[in-house]
Amino acid sequence: MSESAPAPTTPTATTAGPAGPSLKLRRLAIDTYRENVAYLNRDCDVYRAEGFQALSKVEVRTNGRRILATLNVVDDPGLVGCGEVGLSQDAFAQLGVEDGHPAYVSQAEPPESIPALFRKLDGERLGQGDFDAIIRDIAQHRYSKIELTAFVVASNRSELDREEVYFLTEAMVKTGRRLDWRQPVVVDKHCIGGIPGNRTSMLVVPIVAAYGLVFPKTSSRAITSPAGTADTMEVLARVELPFDRLTDIVRQHHGCLAWGGTADLSPADDVLISVERPLSIDSPGQMVASILSKKIAAGATHLVLDIPIGPTAKVRSMPEAQRLRRLFEYVASRMRLSLDVVITDGRQPIGRGIGPVLEARDVMQVLQNDPEAPQDLRQKSLRLAGRLIECHPDVRGGEGYAIARDILESGRALTQMNAIIEAQGACGFDYQNPPLGALSFEARATEAGVVTSIDNLQIARIARLAGAPHVQGAGVDLLRKLGEPVAPGDVLYRVHAGFGADLEFARQACQRSQGVQIGAVGAVPHVFVES
Amino acid sequence: MSESAPAPTTPTATTAGPAGPSLKLRRLAIDTYRENVAYLNRDCDVYRAEGFQALSKVEVRTNGRRILATLNVVDDPGLVGCGEVGLSQDAFAQLGVEDGHPAYVSQAEPPESIPALFRKLDGERLGQGDFDAIIRDIAQHRYSKIELTAFVVASNRSELDREEVYFLTEAMVKTGRRLDWRQPVVVDKHCIGGIPGNRTSMLVVPIVAAYGLVFPKTSSRAITSPAGTADTMEVLARVELPFDRLTDIVRQHHGCLAWGGTADLSPADDVLISVERPLSIDSPGQMVASILSKKIAAGATHLVLDIPIGPTAKVRSMPEAQRLRRLFEYVASRMRLSLDVVITDGRQPIGRGIGPVLEARDVMQVLQNDPEAPQDLRQKSLRLAGRLIECHPDVRGGEGYAIARDILESGRALTQMNAIIEAQGACGFDYQNPPLGALSFEARATEAGVVTSIDNLQIARIARLAGAPHVQGAGVDLLRKLGEPVAPGDVLYRVHAGFGADLEFARQACQRSQGVQIGAVGAVPHVFVES
Repeated sequence: MSESAPAPTTPTATTAGPAGPSLKLRRLAIDTYRENVAYLNRDCDVYRAEGFQALSKVEVRTNGRRILATLNVVDDPGLVGCGEVGLSQDAFAQLGVEDGHPAYVSQAEPPESIPALFRKLDGERLGQGDFDAIIRDIAQHRYSKIELTAFVVASNRSELDREEVYFLTEAMVKTGRRLDWRQPVVVDKHCIGGIPGNRTSMLVVPIVAAYGLVFPKTSSRAITSPAGTADTMEVLARVELPFDRLTDIVRQHHGCLAWGGTADLSPADDVLISVERPLSIDSPGQMVASILSKKIAAGATHLVLDIPIGPTAKVRSMPEAQRLRRLFEYVASRMRLSLDVVITDGRQPIGRGIGPVLEARDVMQVLQNDPEAPQDLRQKSLRLAGRLIECHPDVRGGEGYAIARDILESGRALTQMNAIIEAQGACGFDYQNPPLGALSFEARATEAGVVTSIDNLQIARIARLAGAPHVQGAGVDLLRKLGEPVAPGDVLYRVHAGFGADLEFARQACQRSQGVQIGAVGAVPHVFVES
Repeated sequence: MSESAPAPTTPTATTAGPAGPSLKLRRLAIDTYRENVAYLNRDCDVYRAEGFQALSKVEVRTNGRRILATLNVVDDPGLVGCGEVGLSQDAFAQLGVEDGHPAYVSQAEPPESIPALFRKLDGERLGQGDFDAIIRDIAQHRYSKIELTAFVVASNRSELDREEVYFLTEAMVKTGRRLDWRQPVVVDKHCIGGIPGNRTSMLVVPIVAAYGLVFPKTSSRAITSPAGTADTMEVLARVELPFDRLTDIVRQHHGCLAWGGTADLSPADDVLISVERPLSIDSPGQMVASILSKKIAAGATHLVLDIPIGPTAKVRSMPEAQRLRRLFEYVASRMRLSLDVVITDGRQPIGRGIGPVLEARDVMQVLQNDPEAPQDLRQKSLRLAGRLIECHPDVRGGEGYAIARDILESGRALTQMNAIIEAQGACGFDYQNPPLGALSFEARATEAGVVTSIDNLQIARIARLAGAPHVQGAGVDLLRKLGEPVAPGDVLYRVHAGFGADLEFARQACQRSQGVQIGAVGAVPHVFVES
């Protein structure tokens, strides 16, 4: 494989010559996380001459590189003296020089795209050049938190029309690395999220890769959920792999299941997420741009997208799902990505386990054709794998499912998965003796009836409080699913934790609401999706 | 006068008992401006036990007080050792204890109003309790920059209905100090801004105070303009006065012209402005809440509000002005504030001078009844003063203007102004020899005709580049106004600066666009406002 020239991100070479006197760089052992901080002494000539203010943005240049940093003003020459510029740890590391190296400090130029941002705040429609400029500035960390949030909120809800979503997606692809696998068909799958236990990728990848299609699957870790695919795969194998190693594995085994964080695909998306997450913003436009930009940057030519609907899923009605589908399809078609949207049943978690170890157990049960395997996870995975196999030019529409089932039932999927696990670095997981958290409690039915609802959000919350995904063996093991009969005292689910405090938090949440309702058979909600 | 009990702002007494081990406070000589920063050593037990992350919000408690701070993690025990918590300068000062005092550090509780904020982000209408909670959290500095920006942008444009604007205004008044002058009539005036040179307050206050009405005028400094009333008044007298001194002056002279920054009126507004300003957000709802909350907190019972309209004013059409007027009137009436909106001619700057010294000269010319005085400034000030005088129960509608003119022409306004200047602390300004910036250049007409437009924004920009308001004597002196005839080579305006670099910046801006257009008599735009 090869990659197209990545767009420059900070630090970049600067063309501006040094201005003003140089200062001596000083590394301060202060960790300011992702925010670069520069420290200047208040009596320093540069500080006085430039009319800086604390918290203003400055540019620090040295060694042909430049970084932007927030300014803090120091009154203690022991910390930072006149003639010095202190830098927080990460900021210092980005410059690649030694302590004491000369550097130049100046006011940072305001980002070029600010006028476009202001027009968006005024409710205007933006053009392609505007989005290119905004996303470039964001990827280069030129936006302040204020500007970043303003962009995210002003683009929230229905503020972006579908052509703007296309411009945004295109701009996000342009700013990052773009992979080219030199294959006519490179498949990928993605779910918009929100359904606990939904680990279909770990079944779809080995099935489809066993069929021979190239499937370089990179996943995220859990952000607000009890486990992401990367967290669950990590129970079985290493997922943080050097980029070159990843491409070797894909070349040899057609697929991988790795963490996507090291690939620098769509870097603007990572910056935007840092604001969207604390605000719980997940608007259709931003979701489409975020998902499609990452998949296209990763080199996918064919994508199957899973949109689950249900009362506690992200999408709660069929009309809403159809609107979202059309937006995904419009942008994918503009980007020349072949997209197949599958609307699925999101009324309850998929499989039984929720949490890395529990979900890994479910996946391995399916791959082993174990009679105990959760059938909903198996069925859904075969359906998605079938759709992907139909991307192969030799396969007719409707034949994919049977091919996928044969691959699974013959054990070829398991063989393929084991090869991928070995290649990434196996962790020696025994699915029949999963290393669950040693502490546990059970949630029980208090009345007779059938399970009429399982709240995805509450079950996910309980699993997180129990320690997932940080504690791999923590989580929720669902023993009853929708429509199943229960008697008073029956165990609905078991909660596993690694630490007493976690168990207690989970128990309290469970006491407030256990997330499972019991009622009459007729009260089970229906969902009309293709099965 | 007295004040009602101020709502608590941080630091506040805490009811929660100390939890976990105490740390020794250490003052770090780092100025982080308005953002409190706490520094913990990475090896510190508290840091490890609480699972903190750099940039997360922590609460530091000691001495019955608590502050919120952003966490930075330190790897150098020389800076902050295990068992210590470092604080930035302002944060340390807020706790009112000595170095080495024991303090407790814990994760900050998320602000209570976050669910309401999320509902606003989803496009919902909020209730009074929601606004109270949001504004209380904002005034107590509990919102992160991200949350603050999200609130501002989600309330931008037409996102707030008029009842929500009332709730917002009411909430902003509740969080701050509210003055009570123990007078049936306390007058104030305000202009929504955007017109350079518009220093009517410095004429209206002495005229109306001379009539005997209480007029405790506090003003802001320039934010994005070349001079605010506080900047211009500072040419004549001290404007930063202790709060008690201010009230003495008002009691004795009925009026004052001071900077409002020390009064802690509507503290949430100051926090919101810190986000609105860099985003140039000035939506009707936020403008109304910001202006009315400050005036009501300052104890005004009667307010005259100036809304200028013109092609380069904030408000560009009469329908827009009328919509804004109705919103101001609705909220004022809910708040029981008597409001008189005056829509004025905003086609060009008011007076001749733009910049602190130049504007002070204009004001003094009018007060001195100097034949050179700019007539538009005189006329507009008399008109506004007349409206305010009519707030007096003994004055009939329509009589105010003549009373104001008599007070001005008789010299009583000048006497009153001089008394206020003396009381605040005179600076010895001689309006006939104003201390203008020593460097200057002139913008000249290149063709014959009449002045058909003067761009408020461009003239303001040139005055700021020339150094106003920071350099008091810098600015623009307009020698030709709308409709006046000019011949090629005539001076349109003179730019004054204190420093060569500033003069050069101003000259370049002037060369790009001098902001004054010459054309035929018929091309002068009309404006239909009451005169």
